[in-house]
Amino acid sequence: MASGYISQSAHLNIVWSMGLCILGRHPWEKLPLYALSHILGAFLGAATVYLQYYDAIQVFSGGELLVAGPSATAEIFCSYPADHLSFWGGLVDQVVATAVLLIGCLALEDRRQGPLPDGLTPVLMGALVLTIELSMGSNCGCPLNPARDLGPRLFTFIAGWGEEVFKAGGDWWWIPTVAPFVGALIGTVIYELLIEAHHRNTPQEEQSPGQELETADKEEVVVDSRNNR
Amino acid sequence: MASGYISQSAHLNIVWSMGLCILGRHPWEKLPLYALSHILGAFLGAATVYLQYYDAIQVFSGGELLVAGPSATAEIFCSYPADHLSFWGGLVDQVVATAVLLIGCLALEDRRQGPLPDGLTPVLMGALVLTIELSMGSNCGCPLNPARDLGPRLFTFIAGWGEEVFKAGGDWWWIPTVAPFVGALIGTVIYELLIEAHHRNTPQEEQSPGQELETADKEEVVVDSRNNR
Amino acid sequence: MASGYISQSAHLNIVWSMGLCILGRHPWEKLPLYALSHILGAFLGAATVYLQYYDAIQVFSGGELLVAGPSATAEIFCSYPADHLSFWGGLVDQVVATAVLLIGCLALEDRRQGPLPDGLTPVLMGALVLTIELSMGSNCGCPLNPARDLGPRLFTFIAGWGEEVFKAGGDWWWIPTVAPFVGALIGTVIYELLIEAHHRNTPQEEQSPGQELETADKEEVVVDSRNNR
Amino acid sequence: MASGYISQSAHLNIVWSMGLCILGRHPWEKLPLYALSHILGAFLGAATVYLQYYDAIQVFSGGELLVAGPSATAEIFCSYPADHLSFWGGLVDQVVATAVLLIGCLALEDRRQGPLPDGLTPVLMGALVLTIELSMGSNCGCPLNPARDLGPRLFTFIAGWGEEVFKAGGDWWWIPTVAPFVGALIGTVIYELLIEAHHRNTPQEEQSPGQELETADKEEVVVDSRNNR
Repeated sequence: MASGYISQSAHLNIVWSMGLCILGRHPWEKLPLYALSHILGAFLGAATVYLQYYDAIQVFSGGELLVAGPSATAEIFCSYPADHLSFWGGLVDQVVATAVLLIGCLALEDRRQGPLPDGLTPVLMGALVLTIELSMGSNCGCPLNPARDLGPRLFTFIAGWGEEVFKAGGDWWWIPTVAPFVGALIGTVIYELLIEAHHRNTPQEEQSPGQELETADKEEVVVDSRNNR
Repeated sequence: MASGYISQSAHLNIVWSMGLCILGRHPWEKLPLYALSHILGAFLGAATVYLQYYDAIQVFSGGELLVAGPSATAEIFCSYPADHLSFWGGLVDQVVATAVLLIGCLALEDRRQGPLPDGLTPVLMGALVLTIELSMGSNCGCPLNPARDLGPRLFTFIAGWGEEVFKAGGDWWWIPTVAPFVGALIGTVIYELLIEAHHRNTPQEEQSPGQELETADKEEVVVDSRNNR
Repeated sequence: MASGYISQSAHLNIVWSMGLCILGRHPWEKLPLYALSHILGAFLGAATVYLQYYDAIQVFSGGELLVAGPSATAEIFCSYPADHLSFWGGLVDQVVATAVLLIGCLALEDRRQGPLPDGLTPVLMGALVLTIELSMGSNCGCPLNPARDLGPRLFTFIAGWGEEVFKAGGDWWWIPTVAPFVGALIGTVIYELLIEAHHRNTPQEEQSPGQELETADKEEVVVDSRNNR
Repeated sequence: MASGYISQSAHLNIVWSMGLCILGRHPWEKLPLYALSHILGAFLGAATVYLQYYDAIQVFSGGELLVAGPSATAEIFCSYPADHLSFWGGLVDQVVATAVLLIGCLALEDRRQGPLPDGLTPVLMGALVLTIELSMGSNCGCPLNPARDLGPRLFTFIAGWGEEVFKAGGDWWWIPTVAPFVGALIGTVIYELLIEAHHRNTPQEEQSPGQELETADKEEVVVDSRNNR
């Protein structure tokens, strides 16, 4: 099955890729390269933002690049905890948020949920991320994506904010780096146990023992027919 | 007809399920289990929110979990009336809002209204709920959904806010629990009398006395063909 | 042509219906009934809003239903001019806004503009109205729809705000009642002259002198095939 | 290839047309007429806004049409730099923003990215522009479109704001006029090198040396079949 089913969604978050690996829909050996690409992309994105808002950052910060205080500018680039947030609070926040993200994305990609026009999937994934950010962003800005947090953090480390970007908030940096993987694992398991497991027991899927492979084959046909278009 | 037509929408609100039962599109005997599942789901959701925002709630409330006053936190979880709202005002508010919800949802599910891409229906139902919440939320937060209000209320009752969650606002709790059922009944009747009744009289539907059954059969085919994909 | 082409859009604004009548896509004799229905519907809608927000309006207004001043509540229901707005300014505002509305709606209904999924048209018409309201609402709330303004105005006249609802702003009431018709006429003419006229000259439409009739027939087929579904 | 492939998107921004010309999907000789039409359209749009908000502008500005200061009104019509913005900052801002716009639009028009319902493309292009404006608008309002900036600037020059509209911000006017072309060139090159170039190497496209021409032909068929509908 692992070789047959090719997920058609964009891999824009390494924990989403990991979820697909856990389900056997994506090869594990691609993960490290994806992770590095994401970190590099996010690093370059942060550099572009710095370039574009260089004047505004200089004026606002008075030329001093700080991580904390009223003229802090580091939080433009990556996640820092709100004052009220404890260590465990931050961990729970990102585990819950990423679990919800994975459950939502797996549902959107689940063809057995009903016919969703292909072009609509990315739009709805964007709406899902927006909803999560709006409802869960008050604790630490809801990073959700280890690479999108670590890449810009590395940029600010190099660009003049210094090692405080890693020390701030009691070594906060590793929570947005590690917690989303835990949340993605939990979200994937929840979706499999509570939703996917029941799909497999519906009568029209039980026709043959090899039905899962067949589903995979069918998906491949879709992929091929699209490429030939 | 009751056995033939299977509604394809998600049952995320027990009053919507009740509306479909009234119309014979959903079996009544499933309602109690749905209601219990919704209450349990909303209870667990409230527990997750409490876990995720535990630090923030502790800091904001000073550690004291109150239902009323400037540091009240109970309204994060379920509906309480605004100061200006009377008993009858609250009742009317939820009856009207849920009637509008049902009319809108029935129109979105009505195939005779014109071709709506399947994947778009949930998006438009979300837009409908958003519109209702934005325009009718000032009186009591527009709960609309008995289970989504009662489940979190039970959670806050257990988690430390105490029996005040039921006593507040003059035993307010039963209005969001009961009024939406009344509104759903009224909304369903309005839609049937003012819209559906006229569909049945259009010439191309009068061909045979068994046409309604035929429509139901056709729907079943749609369901089957989708499941086989 | 007038009898052949049946517009498939909802007639939710009498000036949109008038635009379709001008283009021969809708029978003129239906207009008066549509207009009366819209006014009645808007009247009932205003009554529902008053019922739902009765408590809030009583508290905010101190029990006195006023059209002007700090505790005025009449503007909840229909359009009144901002202090800066002159007579001519109001007229131009509604003529321009309704012309833009008609140009946009005609473009969305124009099949020759490219393939638009049917279910998406109402969503995009909603987005069009939202855009117009957001960018042109500062002068007088951008009523756009004579019936949706006159119906609620009649309700407030009866419900206790009195004849001031017609006298306020220098007999303002007739501008949202009349100006949209002028704007709709101008918008329809602009779209016909600048867009539709050029469609008719494209090579693949010049095949036969009766091509317009053919287009109309084709539309009918679409209508029929949908109804039979 | 240049003659075969006809882009189906609307040409609402001259730099997007230029990007398509660079890629050989649009004839260069049409660019000047498009540019003039856009400037004329934006000029007329600005005149309409002035007409519609004449009263409000008179009241707000006290009758004096100014480019700078607390009662300035020129920024209603076109872009001016924020106080913090330097010459180079403005240039970089518009180059980056337009490059991102072109990369996004080229991806949305790229059929090899997957099946996107035609009617959704303009909606997603609108969402792309909204996203860019929201995230990059703080420096100078993110004009993105030379014609939409120059047309209204010419209108304000004539309508009474005077030559200050060109002198303000250190001859700012030419940055929104020129920088988007540079950004569009860079964005087009980035998309071609990093995305398109890899499409051409996928196995199913390497069948024959003339495959690019074939793709173009297929596109033409799509265009024809649509026109005949």
